This record gives sequence, structure tokens and C-alpha cells, in this order.
Amino acid sequence: MATLQFELDAPSAVEHAPMLNDRLLRACRREPLDRPPVWMMRQAGRYLPEYRAVRAGSDFLSMVRTPELAAEVTLQPIDILGVDAAIIFSDILVIPSAMGMNLTVEDGVGPRFSDPLRSPSALNALRETVPEEDLRYTLDAIRLVRRELNGKVPVIGFAGAPWTLAAYMIEGGGSPNFQHAKRAMLSEPKFMRTLLHRLAREVGAFLCAQVEAGAQVLQLFDSWAGALTPADYREFALPALAEAAAIAKTSGAPLIVFPHGASWALEEVAIATKADVIGVDWRIDPAEARRVADRLGIAVQGNLDPCVLYGTPDVIRDRTLHMLKKFNGPGHIANLGHGIFLDVPVESARMFIDTVQGWSTGN
Amino acid sequence: MATLQFELDAPSAVEHAPMLNDRLLRACRREPLDRPPVWMMRQAGRYLPEYRAVRAGSDFLSMVRTPELAAEVTLQPIDILGVDAAIIFSDILVIPSAMGMNLTVEDGVGPRFSDPLRSPSALNALRETVPEEDLRYTLDAIRLVRRELNGKVPVIGFAGAPWTLAAYMIEGGGSPNFQHAKRAMLSEPKFMRTLLHRLAREVGAFLCAQVEAGAQVLQLFDSWAGALTPADYREFALPALAEAAAIAKTSGAPLIVFPHGASWALEEVAIATKADVIGVDWRIDPAEARRVADRLGIAVQGNLDPCVLYGTPDVIRDRTLHMLKKFNGPGHIANLGHGIFLDVPVESARMFIDTVQGWSTGN
Repeated sequence: MATLQFELDAPSAVEHAPMLNDRLLRACRREPLDRPPVWMMRQAGRYLPEYRAVRAGSDFLSMVRTPELAAEVTLQPIDILGVDAAIIFSDILVIPSAMGMNLTVEDGVGPRFSDPLRSPSALNALRETVPEEDLRYTLDAIRLVRRELNGKVPVIGFAGAPWTLAAYMIEGGGSPNFQHAKRAMLSEPKFMRTLLHRLAREVGAFLCAQVEAGAQVLQLFDSWAGALTPADYREFALPALAEAAAIAKTSGAPLIVFPHGASWALEEVAIATKADVIGVDWRIDPAEARRVADRLGIAVQGNLDPCVLYGTPDVIRDRTLHMLKKFNGPGHIANLGHGIFLDVPVESARMFIDTVQGWSTGN
Repeated sequence: MATLQFELDAPSAVEHAPMLNDRLLRACRREPLDRPPVWMMRQAGRYLPEYRAVRAGSDFLSMVRTPELAAEVTLQPIDILGVDAAIIFSDILVIPSAMGMNLTVEDGVGPRFSDPLRSPSALNALRETVPEEDLRYTLDAIRLVRRELNGKVPVIGFAGAPWTLAAYMIEGGGSPNFQHAKRAMLSEPKFMRTLLHRLAREVGAFLCAQVEAGAQVLQLFDSWAGALTPADYREFALPALAEAAAIAKTSGAPLIVFPHGASWALEEVAIATKADVIGVDWRIDPAEARRVADRLGIAVQGNLDPCVLYGTPDVIRDRTLHMLKKFNGPGHIANLGHGIFLDVPVESARMFIDTVQGWSTGN
């Protein structure tokens, strides 16, 4: 398997090419467009045979930590599907990993920390990262992607929201109920707040570093927003998310915030984070999400049920058009409501992308 | 392990004792009460040592299918915790099992159908059940419980909602994404509608039979309501749920409908099903759920985050009181927002129950 080979210039010497396709950037600012930009969460993923070919010679974390490999799979969906943005191939758990937690990612098991974070002393033992040192692999991958794209489409950088990272760190992995994380929230609120505050600064700094490396849009994934009661989300998760967002916004890049599973929180999250774009999953009617976005004067990203890509070509086209019509208006970024599943046929992903790209907002 | 021994009268000969604690029945009608009734979803469960003792000599499905054992564990939380209602020990998947699907329930694996339902011919091969024959074990258990309680507290019967049952049947078990069920919904809508319609009649008939056997309140669990887009829920799940509810309501028993994970749907579900009580999970602010209930003139059940029971006694008491105050008003049934977890200490469950029972609505 031949991989792309890059040589990096010193960051200061980089001159970026003008953007050939800037629909994503313009959608983030709610500017009028011929059609919405479209990309897919987890678009650099296992549904692509070309990704599986790279993955066959490496493991997931080695791919994340090898800039040439991360850049290569980041670019695949641009070449193969023609999506309107590249999102850097990485993982939200690179921050806890860089802080000193031992992360493993196994097929069929998912991410695991061998030593879950359960005490203030364990938290004290975690280091404060310097992104250009501890997370340099992702920053280098962004540099490579930005240069290789040469203005073709914008590059999206991302990070996990503090609550989502805290939940993974305390549980030691995914969880149906997040009982350990919630127990900490309930019984050791000071510990939880300290952790969230530390993570907010880590997340903010990493996002800013990604912009310095060349990312042009940022996304904050609050993947477990839906696990909390509104009261707990407001008291713990949201202030830390807002803190991370405030730091990220100093970069000048537009910010997408995606509070997955918490449709009730869209308006509050958008206001607290000053998000340029609110990401929505498929559990909300696009017309309702559009109303929230218009009320706040921001853009909105989403929200096709990723299971629609298991449907026939007709179903995919009809459902995509239906979504586009319901979102119609300035500042819509077409996307799935969740990451694309690993066993979706490439042709089904292509039908989704092509349907968006063949649609005209004038319709 | 000694189990209770019962002898059943012929159903027609049963004379029911007057109710000593009818708070649940009165709350379903929004009548004024000294305090809200309280019970817990999955209250007959593994967090109780007495349950584990019965379980040690049996497997889960044998307990469900042995009226004396089902009755025994149904009664345990009444005796041990003093909850204000008994919910019959059973499983929502007894209906697909009685229709002919081979169900297994293993520890750590959960329910599985060995032969998932994936075709119209497989659906045609499933039998139409006669509750008094095919599900007699649950009906007998209800008779035993009703007689043994002798008016102490009311008995709740239940069933799974058609969409939730269909999802389990098509997937063959639980699933993070319900891709097979959604694929069927998208690509074989006629098959899905036929299945949902059949299940609606099965569910309705089983609920009516439970009332005939002695159940005084009914609950419909739509555990996977939150998996669907609002459009799909409205088009497929809700009409079938309404059909099941309409049949169930002919029994005259008050009906609780619990669309888990779909807070957006509360009002629509309550209206479509003519529910007497809307069940809510912890992802909605109690004040908002109360507003919905008041607007419709119905009762509301919920919604403490079950993870709160992992907290300290102070946390459990404070959170429970906070919830009670936010729900305060006629027709609140205190409950968790989801089934109690199997590793919750009994004393923590007791703290929740005692806090509700020590509270006065006059406060």
C-alpha cells in the first residue's frame, strides 16, 4: 500500500492558496449560496475501501498519530466523493491521551482507557499539554492536508467537548449510562468542575493550534450531551463548553457546536458558546432546527438519519431532498445527523452527496 | 429457596378487596393527594437481594413464565420498600415470543431472537396470540399478585409499544442504531406497517387481558421512541401506538404511555393515545413536563435520573425533593426516568421512596 509522502515547510513559511470551493466558509456566515455545502461526519472511515486498505497496514491510533496516514485518509472522501470539506482524521480522545491517559482502540470494542480517572490525585497526575508538542501529529496532518488540498475545499479541525471527554475519562470508555461520570458529578461536584475546567482549556488551546496549523473551520462534538438532565447540563457541561468555545473563537475560525442527543439545548448551547453553526442530529425536525438558527441569526448543520444510507437509491434521494427543502435558506450545511456507519455502501454515500450537490437553493 | 404457593380461583369467582392505598389510581385521574404515589420502573429486579435469591434458582424467562415466581418477585418491592404500586414481573418481549419467535435472555447479553424477522413470509408464519392461552403465565401471575396484595396497592400491567417490539424483532435484539429496523421502514414501508398493525392488536389485546386478570393501571413502554426522526415516528410508530392504546383503553383502566428518549413527542403522543398519564425520562425539565401535562389535563410520571441513586443519601434526597417541587401539582406519579440499575444499593432505592413518601404536597 503506497501512502502519500509529504515534506513539511516550516509553519511560518506557508502561503495558503486561494479557496476554489468556499461554500462551507460562506455557509458558516449565512451568505447566500447556489447550493448548501455537504460533508459527512466520519467521512474518512471504514465504509471506504481505500480507507480499509490503509487501515489494513496499520491500527487506528497509529493512523491518527502518523501525519502522512492521517492526511491520506482525510483526503480520500474529497477525491472519491467530492465532498465540500475535509475534516482532519483524528479522534476526540487524543486530548486525554496526550494528557497521559493510556488509550486503546480495538475493533468491536471501541476506545478504552486502561486506568479510568476516578480521583483528584489521578487528575493532578495528568499533564497540561502543549499542542505543538503533545498533539503535533494532528497539527502536522492538518498542515499536510491544507497544502495538498491547495484551496480545493476548506479543512475542518475538531475536538470533543469537555463533558464528553470527562465522561470517557471517568468511565474508561463508552457506556450506556455513564454511571461513574454521573456519580462523580453528583457526589464530587468540585472534582468534576476542576476536570471540566482543565479540559475546557485543553480543548480551546488544541482548537486554536489546529487553526494555526491551517484548519479553517472548527467543530466541537458534545457526543454525550444527551446523557444529562437539562439541569446537570446547564450546571456542569455548558459552562465548560462555553469556556472552550470562547478560547476557540479567539482563533477567528467559524465554530460549529454539535450537542448530540440534546435537541432541547440547541438554543442555549448556541447562545452560551457564540457558535457560528449549531449542529443537529436526526431527532429534531429540520424545520424546527431552522427556526432556532434563524432566531439566533446563525447557521445550522445536519441532519439526515445516517440509517437512511441503508435505503435504496430512491429512498436516499427522496429523504435528502426532503431534508434540504425543510432546511432551505441561508446558512445550511448539509450533513448526516451522526457519523456515517462503517458498513454503508460507498454508492449510497455518493447518492447523498450527489443529491445535495445537484440541488439548487433556487428550487 | 421457598417460593410462595398459590391456588387460583376461577377468574370469574374473584372478588377484589377494596383498595387501601389508591394514590396511584387517584393520581392517574389528577385528583388531589396528600403526596404523590411512587414506584420504580424495574422495581422487581436484581438490585434486591431477595430477587437475586429467586433468580439464583431459575433463569430470567423461567421466572417470567412461572406465575408463582413472577408473583413472588412482583411483591418483593412492596414488602421491602413499601412502594405505592406493584408492576407485574414480565418482559415486553413476551408478545413476540408468544407469536412464535425464539427468545433468549442471557446475563450480560440481553434479549436475543435467534431468527430475526426480516421478511413478509416470516411475519406470516407468526401466530396470532390468544392471551389467555399463549400469555397465560403473565395473566395468572397478575391474578396471584392481585389476590395476595388484597387491596394494599394497585397492580400495573404493561406491554411494549409496537415500534419498540418491531425494532427488537427485526434487529434480533437491542441495537445502537436499529439499522435493520430502519432499513425495513425506509425500503419496505408496507411490511413495516403490516407488522406494526399486527403488533398494535397483539399489544392492545394483551393489555385488555391483563386488566381482566386484575391489572388496575396499564403502561405502554415505547423504549426506542428516541431512535426515530420525528417524521418517521409520526408516520410509522405513532399510528400503531395509538391503535394499541385505543384497544387498551376499552378496558377502562388508566393508561400510562412512556415514549422514552423522545421528549419532543410528549404532547403528540399523549393526544394520539388519549393517555391518562404521560411518562417522561430525565432528559426533560420536570417543569416543562408539568406544563405539557397541565395543558392537556393529564397526569405525568417521572423522572429522576436513575444515576442519582448512585449518589450519597444527601444527594438522593435533595434531588428527589427538587424533582417533587418542580412537578408539584395534581397528577404527579413519582418514578425514575428509566428502570432502576441492577447495582444500585437497596438503601439508595429506599432513600428515594422514603423521600417521596415523607414529602407533603402542602409543602
